[in-house]
Amino acid sequence: MTKFILSQRSFKSEYLDQMKKIAPQFQFITEIHAKEDWEKVAVTIGWQEEWQPLLASNSNLKWVQSISAGVDYLPLNDFESKNILLTNAKGIHKEAISEHVLTTILMRLRGFNEAAIGQRHKKWSQAVFYGKLEEQKILIIGTGQIGQELAKTLKLLGNQPVGVNTTGHKVANFEQTFAISQLKSIVKQFDFVINILPLTTQTHHLYDADFFNAMKHTATFVNVGRGASVDTNALLVALQKRSIAYAALDVFEEEPLLQTNPLWQLDNILITPHIAGMVPHFQQKFMAIFLQNLTSFVSNQSVVKNQVDLKKGY
Amino acid sequence: MTKFILSQRSFKSEYLDQMKKIAPQFQFITEIHAKEDWEKVAVTIGWQEEWQPLLASNSNLKWVQSISAGVDYLPLNDFESKNILLTNAKGIHKEAISEHVLTTILMRLRGFNEAAIGQRHKKWSQAVFYGKLEEQKILIIGTGQIGQELAKTLKLLGNQPVGVNTTGHKVANFEQTFAISQLKSIVKQFDFVINILPLTTQTHHLYDADFFNAMKHTATFVNVGRGASVDTNALLVALQKRSIAYAALDVFEEEPLLQTNPLWQLDNILITPHIAGMVPHFQQKFMAIFLQNLTSFVSNQSVVKNQVDLKKGY
Repeated sequence: MTKFILSQRSFKSEYLDQMKKIAPQFQFITEIHAKEDWEKVAVTIGWQEEWQPLLASNSNLKWVQSISAGVDYLPLNDFESKNILLTNAKGIHKEAISEHVLTTILMRLRGFNEAAIGQRHKKWSQAVFYGKLEEQKILIIGTGQIGQELAKTLKLLGNQPVGVNTTGHKVANFEQTFAISQLKSIVKQFDFVINILPLTTQTHHLYDADFFNAMKHTATFVNVGRGASVDTNALLVALQKRSIAYAALDVFEEEPLLQTNPLWQLDNILITPHIAGMVPHFQQKFMAIFLQNLTSFVSNQSVVKNQVDLKKGY
Repeated sequence: MTKFILSQRSFKSEYLDQMKKIAPQFQFITEIHAKEDWEKVAVTIGWQEEWQPLLASNSNLKWVQSISAGVDYLPLNDFESKNILLTNAKGIHKEAISEHVLTTILMRLRGFNEAAIGQRHKKWSQAVFYGKLEEQKILIIGTGQIGQELAKTLKLLGNQPVGVNTTGHKVANFEQTFAISQLKSIVKQFDFVINILPLTTQTHHLYDADFFNAMKHTATFVNVGRGASVDTNALLVALQKRSIAYAALDVFEEEPLLQTNPLWQLDNILITPHIAGMVPHFQQKFMAIFLQNLTSFVSNQSVVKNQVDLKKGY
């Protein structure tokens, strides 16, 4: 019986050819046409809400390869109870996200946000504050692949970033690391506070009113992790009251951000539309992960790269 | 007789104290109150148009310490005929300008310009193009201190920048260098073309219609040198016709840019209000140059740091 690899997106023919060579008994599809086809799906690339039949009792789904690094939006409990393997696209986005965060920091230090407001109003207006990257105290919350890449880049540029992870264990390129339990007591020391954590029950609304009140008044909060790690109303109030100076947000509790969202009204915010992870040559990088896993999956129903711990959620 | 150091701006008292120690016979002033005081001015910090009496035959002005690196706006011919020494603030701004240019490149590669337009219209709209810094072909026109600093930073981040200078002589951190005479024949190879040249009769309108036509359609032009090196109308047309993709301009033929200037209307432009050289701790860095020169000037009427060749203009 032909099995299906159901994908939420298409890929260049060269990659489809490689799939065919590795797994001749599998057919790559991007749409389900007949009800009985759901049972033939063994693998998915990505996930969509309409794919609920793949969680039914007659489903033969064995493996989901996520297109993103974060997997918080997936039905992890269902995957676990049905023994469905989950792999993510971790590692693909680290350079892109690192460069995105570096850009937001430099924009803040070099007066680009004031220039953007000037350009909006066709008005020549210089910022009052300029800073040197080397001298900034930068806290990176999350010392995984993305955090490490960012720390490496900042270190190359003369900065000494500090990290936060679960236990406070040491990580290369970080000057120092703290445990997440110490976060609120240390945050006041930092000029830039950058969230890169995955969304889990532990990180939901981790950044709340107390947190923003504990930050330095002149500090910038950057979020390239997940929107729901932030209590958006608390952040909105902090920015309005200027209890923190600035935020650069790429992810939001509500995406896309509706035109009526009050965040758009603020002057002390940089809004980017969930683009930090956008990478050139995405297909090539993604396929390097997927085809390696497919080879292993075909031979013994296992995966070798980027398997997600379904209990931990990352 | 007391001599004056006339300054276009004030400085912290610690620096005034140091001046006094080095040159007790000099008095620091920021305003001329009596007509006869013009003759007492021996040194200026900066220059202002109203200071024409300092070029009259009864003037005793001996030395001008410019606050900027570029000195194109100063009466160089008058200084030359009157044997007035000129020193500039070269070296102070190199890190700031390098970080400014890096920011403009990263903004272009990471979709921040489209995000800014989205924010202007309260609209969630992702860019279609993302690029990797390493892979960009970057041409830095001007391999002086600023160009070298930028090349060093780009190299640290994995890029291999190419330089242009008068003769094409080799310079550290540049992968390759070309002579300015070759500029129009090589420019098509580059994704980013960055002007850092001083303004002289040779560089006035160096970037004209022919130049922009010779550039790659997908390329970005960055100007952090001087506005009048660019034929602004030719650039405007090139951006409107999309014969080049983007421009990031910090300097303009007309400054400040009037609200009616058509450049503001463009979507494929980043306008910053002459801020690339803005530096934190400016006074400290500037005084490191000025006080060294003042020491030498007091002892033997010479300067030791950053003297400008009045014929060359830099």
